[in-house]
Amino acid sequence: MVSAWLMKARLPLLLLILEVLFIVLFAVTADYEDSARPPLPARRHGGNQSEAMGGGHAQPEGHGAGAAGPGPIATYYPMFQDVHVMIFIGFGFLMTFLRRYGFSSVGINMLLAAVAIQWAMLVSGYIHGHGGKVHIGVTNMLTADFAAAAVLITFGALLGKTSPLQLVVVCFLEIILFSVNEWIGLSLLEVVDVGGSMFVHAFGAYFGLAVSRMLYRKDVEEATKEGSVYHSDLFSMIGTIFLWLFWPSFNSALAVEDAQHRAVINTYLALAACCVVTFAVSALTDPNCKFDMVHVQNATLAGGVAVGTSADMMIGLHGALLIGSVAGALSVLGFKYITPFLASRLKIHDTCGVNNLHGMPAILAAIAGCIASVLADEDNYGYTLYRQFPARSPANETSPEFLHISQHMEISAGKGRTASEQASFQIAALAVTLIIAISGGAVVGLIVRFIPMDQPRGEALFEDSRHWHVPD
Amino acid sequence: MVSAWLMKARLPLLLLILEVLFIVLFAVTADYEDSARPPLPARRHGGNQSEAMGGGHAQPEGHGAGAAGPGPIATYYPMFQDVHVMIFIGFGFLMTFLRRYGFSSVGINMLLAAVAIQWAMLVSGYIHGHGGKVHIGVTNMLTADFAAAAVLITFGALLGKTSPLQLVVVCFLEIILFSVNEWIGLSLLEVVDVGGSMFVHAFGAYFGLAVSRMLYRKDVEEATKEGSVYHSDLFSMIGTIFLWLFWPSFNSALAVEDAQHRAVINTYLALAACCVVTFAVSALTDPNCKFDMVHVQNATLAGGVAVGTSADMMIGLHGALLIGSVAGALSVLGFKYITPFLASRLKIHDTCGVNNLHGMPAILAAIAGCIASVLADEDNYGYTLYRQFPARSPANETSPEFLHISQHMEISAGKGRTASEQASFQIAALAVTLIIAISGGAVVGLIVRFIPMDQPRGEALFEDSRHWHVPD
Amino acid sequence: MVSAWLMKARLPLLLLILEVLFIVLFAVTADYEDSARPPLPARRHGGNQSEAMGGGHAQPEGHGAGAAGPGPIATYYPMFQDVHVMIFIGFGFLMTFLRRYGFSSVGINMLLAAVAIQWAMLVSGYIHGHGGKVHIGVTNMLTADFAAAAVLITFGALLGKTSPLQLVVVCFLEIILFSVNEWIGLSLLEVVDVGGSMFVHAFGAYFGLAVSRMLYRKDVEEATKEGSVYHSDLFSMIGTIFLWLFWPSFNSALAVEDAQHRAVINTYLALAACCVVTFAVSALTDPNCKFDMVHVQNATLAGGVAVGTSADMMIGLHGALLIGSVAGALSVLGFKYITPFLASRLKIHDTCGVNNLHGMPAILAAIAGCIASVLADEDNYGYTLYRQFPARSPANETSPEFLHISQHMEISAGKGRTASEQASFQIAALAVTLIIAISGGAVVGLIVRFIPMDQPRGEALFEDSRHWHVPD
Repeated sequence: MVSAWLMKARLPLLLLILEVLFIVLFAVTADYEDSARPPLPARRHGGNQSEAMGGGHAQPEGHGAGAAGPGPIATYYPMFQDVHVMIFIGFGFLMTFLRRYGFSSVGINMLLAAVAIQWAMLVSGYIHGHGGKVHIGVTNMLTADFAAAAVLITFGALLGKTSPLQLVVVCFLEIILFSVNEWIGLSLLEVVDVGGSMFVHAFGAYFGLAVSRMLYRKDVEEATKEGSVYHSDLFSMIGTIFLWLFWPSFNSALAVEDAQHRAVINTYLALAACCVVTFAVSALTDPNCKFDMVHVQNATLAGGVAVGTSADMMIGLHGALLIGSVAGALSVLGFKYITPFLASRLKIHDTCGVNNLHGMPAILAAIAGCIASVLADEDNYGYTLYRQFPARSPANETSPEFLHISQHMEISAGKGRTASEQASFQIAALAVTLIIAISGGAVVGLIVRFIPMDQPRGEALFEDSRHWHVPD
Repeated sequence: MVSAWLMKARLPLLLLILEVLFIVLFAVTADYEDSARPPLPARRHGGNQSEAMGGGHAQPEGHGAGAAGPGPIATYYPMFQDVHVMIFIGFGFLMTFLRRYGFSSVGINMLLAAVAIQWAMLVSGYIHGHGGKVHIGVTNMLTADFAAAAVLITFGALLGKTSPLQLVVVCFLEIILFSVNEWIGLSLLEVVDVGGSMFVHAFGAYFGLAVSRMLYRKDVEEATKEGSVYHSDLFSMIGTIFLWLFWPSFNSALAVEDAQHRAVINTYLALAACCVVTFAVSALTDPNCKFDMVHVQNATLAGGVAVGTSADMMIGLHGALLIGSVAGALSVLGFKYITPFLASRLKIHDTCGVNNLHGMPAILAAIAGCIASVLADEDNYGYTLYRQFPARSPANETSPEFLHISQHMEISAGKGRTASEQASFQIAALAVTLIIAISGGAVVGLIVRFIPMDQPRGEALFEDSRHWHVPD
Repeated sequence: MVSAWLMKARLPLLLLILEVLFIVLFAVTADYEDSARPPLPARRHGGNQSEAMGGGHAQPEGHGAGAAGPGPIATYYPMFQDVHVMIFIGFGFLMTFLRRYGFSSVGINMLLAAVAIQWAMLVSGYIHGHGGKVHIGVTNMLTADFAAAAVLITFGALLGKTSPLQLVVVCFLEIILFSVNEWIGLSLLEVVDVGGSMFVHAFGAYFGLAVSRMLYRKDVEEATKEGSVYHSDLFSMIGTIFLWLFWPSFNSALAVEDAQHRAVINTYLALAACCVVTFAVSALTDPNCKFDMVHVQNATLAGGVAVGTSADMMIGLHGALLIGSVAGALSVLGFKYITPFLASRLKIHDTCGVNNLHGMPAILAAIAGCIASVLADEDNYGYTLYRQFPARSPANETSPEFLHISQHMEISAGKGRTASEQASFQIAALAVTLIIAISGGAVVGLIVRFIPMDQPRGEALFEDSRHWHVPD
């Protein structure tokens, strides 16, 4: 009896264990960042506090955070909230298109994201940290939402074919691999990816597709509930449009000054062009030239992914429009031809078509970023070249070149990379991302397949009532 | 004939009378606040204008609002809009879960909020004012939204069982009591409650439950339409998620500097933990470990309420997570066991379960705020202690202690309270709130019950078509 | 065969041609605005770049955009995103009320807006430009959304009775006329219209009604699908409420300082009053005093339109409430009595009632703006009078009056207009707008009627399945 109940109660018990773990880890290993703490008079510093505090408290007493310039809330909070809406409303409702899986789509989306943001703050802090406590503030909240996005993209590949228990386990493990991969890309390879197209979208999509391959069962192809109804498609459009609207915030939240403004403009234009081309190609690939709602729900967003790596670069207005246009076409063609191929030939079932919305457009993003990196020089970036690509700063802080640049722009010693070296590293980061995502996803997929975790079959596929009290 | 029409037309006529009243009162007793008025050259001041203007106009001519530092729009408007979305989308759609009451949920929600915000601006201005005109600006718009929230929480307790006429009368009277109670708490008791957990959530919930008790009729328990359908539950999730997303803005909009950043972080973490625990406890209290959509729609939000009083205090990251976790569990258990008990034993029918989402979590918030107040001292707050708890500032402006503090932090003379004195006042404010809410709600409930106001019965319960043209 | 396919494929082919056109035009005739470009050291300036760059690059090297004061993203982006939500969520979902036309409402809304924003950026740049390249930044994104709003209002008049092909052609032509009309109003007539009530709402509505008149066919009156179902009305309320919430951003995004704060307050109050009066008049005009969802969905918003021209003027709090109240009543009466009259007598079928939500309230807005202009003087505006009405600045830069004012307020030479002259120009701008909108709409309507463009008939009216794959 008890063991039967324990089997059923594995998910809620796991959730409670996770939350206790998070509370302990936040208590022991994390603290507010400086600007979220009162400025304490020096004489009152306790010994064990100073570790987490850093130099910020040497500043004059009585001046709160942000006495000089706008504080982090004024700087980051509006765009953070846009991204937050994308994660919980955007992804959540985008997936409600299934006729009998809306509760899970929006509900489990919320649960996974709530687990992911807490866990990602900690893991990312450990990996990027310097031994002291993890400092928590609005910028962690923002990057935690990025990590959650990767998990939710993976969710999109697995939607309707996995139990919530499987998904929570996938989420927990994916966040670790996500953070490792991102750290390799940003800290070891020193590449740039302002909108996270490689580290979020490519990673989340191919990780999810690898898990999906491992979980493959024939009955998924025969499931009868994998379809939409009229109103479920409208609910889905709520998600689509909020994602579409706030994508410029996603791609620019962590950029600065002119690069931030440029990231907003480029993303906005890429999305507008992508929307137009999506409608065009959707009709052209249909014998009666009718639009397909699946394309509108998804492919219109591919431009935001595809411009993500190069959004803050000098790609030109036409460059942004071109990237968005190609992404829209590629994504529709993916839904039309590649998704069926993956399912029938490679046994990779992709419920939401994340390969089309996130995967292939992210590869396009990496290529565009590589090309834009090759073309970057002081002629078009001025000294901001070294802010945009820190690895291109001279390696030697005493070299005349370094000293010349640092008269105009605050820089640290870099790697002295040339444009084509930087471009090579950009592509290397994509390769590393694909390797970690696919191999990691495969291992995680095997884990959640062969440790029994209640994977749904037959009538339980794409069906809420297995895990929810459903009215009617 | 005329009198029959007059009976039917009482609500629209009341609305017109109210709007005329508002227009007159705004014309005679209110004006734009300084930063929303052109800076007038001194020589042009008319006698009757200067009363409403204050010292701001002694400033150099030709400088608009916000010449020094960001103006009120830059400071408050983004968070105001988040809160605004919570009030109209959040509360409005949260209540659309009823299968035949969606028009009323979102429509009457809009009507009540539109009445409440106008009336609250005036009433709050009269109570907090200093005899001159009420000064209207974006901060009033923000606090008016807080007042509207209390009314809409009350609406949640009464949903489906009351006529729009009753609700408008309740709204009108509740705003007055709300404003008096808030004034007692903030100005007489000098307590702090940055997210309004006591003054908004506890007040609105227990006021509403008291009205509900007075309106109790047996046929409510037998009503057949008090339930959801699949898509109405999805509409409700739109409300839930926007409330969940923007709650950090609700709890931090009126905080400053490091305290504002802290309020954002604490609320964000409390909500994340609350969400995870809600799913866990929802499944654990079900024999088949299924999730209940009612819990997801409501209990996931309880963390935002429960951390509301202490959100800007130094409760620690783990403190925020713990408060959120407890609130989630408490709220689910409330839906499961306390709501049925209230209905069957105490004849308190609570349609939306506001006791679980707002009532009990707000009491938890007050207790957490009390504990955090006991623990507050200069060691963890520095001199911001006196900004956080103004009543703890020394009472004597010439005392050495006052002079010492004021070298570091701009303060006014306070009450010289100790930490435990402040904590006692915090609990006293909760007690006063409960007394005013319950007794006020009882009186208002009697008024709208015994003055005939068209209270629905039988088939008209939880049914839109009584007050709306409904298609199909 | 090919020509049959070409007939069917006209829309997607047109969309591709348009997007290629946009890419070429952006590449050749537009560039990032200065604050979205890196600050380039002077010696690196290429000859062909300097044209597009202007004087901003004479500033010290190494300082990005916004080194002094907040940059354009901090200043405009939050309100831009509010307006962006209005365009895509607000207008898109507002129109989903039709039972079988939701895909088109939200989908074609998105398509038209994506075409409109790209095209409007270019056209507006050409018309307002000074021969050089069009400079693209967040302010163009904002004004492009305004132009899109006009197109979507027109869409509201034509909803369900036109093919997507017709609508794209209408959109393309309307943007040109919109931009010309706006330029005449702002640059030739030098009127003010901060919320675009005349240039956006009146223009879009009467342009659309003129097109609708030209497309009139009897079978529209007999169509059976022009109605809502319960849940489609709730989807529509998503649009209504987001429009209602963010309207203060629409009316104030381009205002500054005290005028911006005032525009927020006035719009907020006008909408609150409008909402209350809408409910009242909706019930009063019904024999059973029931509310009509159509009124709540639409007339509650009329206050935002009606206060749009005068929102940043000193109309007083009661002035804003009064304008909003009148607009709500006018709009409900329009739905009740004028829309049927237009359809039956004038053969102008107005699917969404844009005459009631946008047309008549915009005329009210122009009148209110005219009255407020008559009353404007230095007594109530100080020297900001010349910022508010630049044409009232003295014409002669060497006159003593000009020199006196410019000691207090940065001004350019104006036209030396009196208050009543300015008021006359305000009304003249309305007249010009109506003439261009109605005559332009008539011509465009003839074009899309008599060049065969697949206009729906009979069962295809108000029906998605003609242009969409529809589930069920």
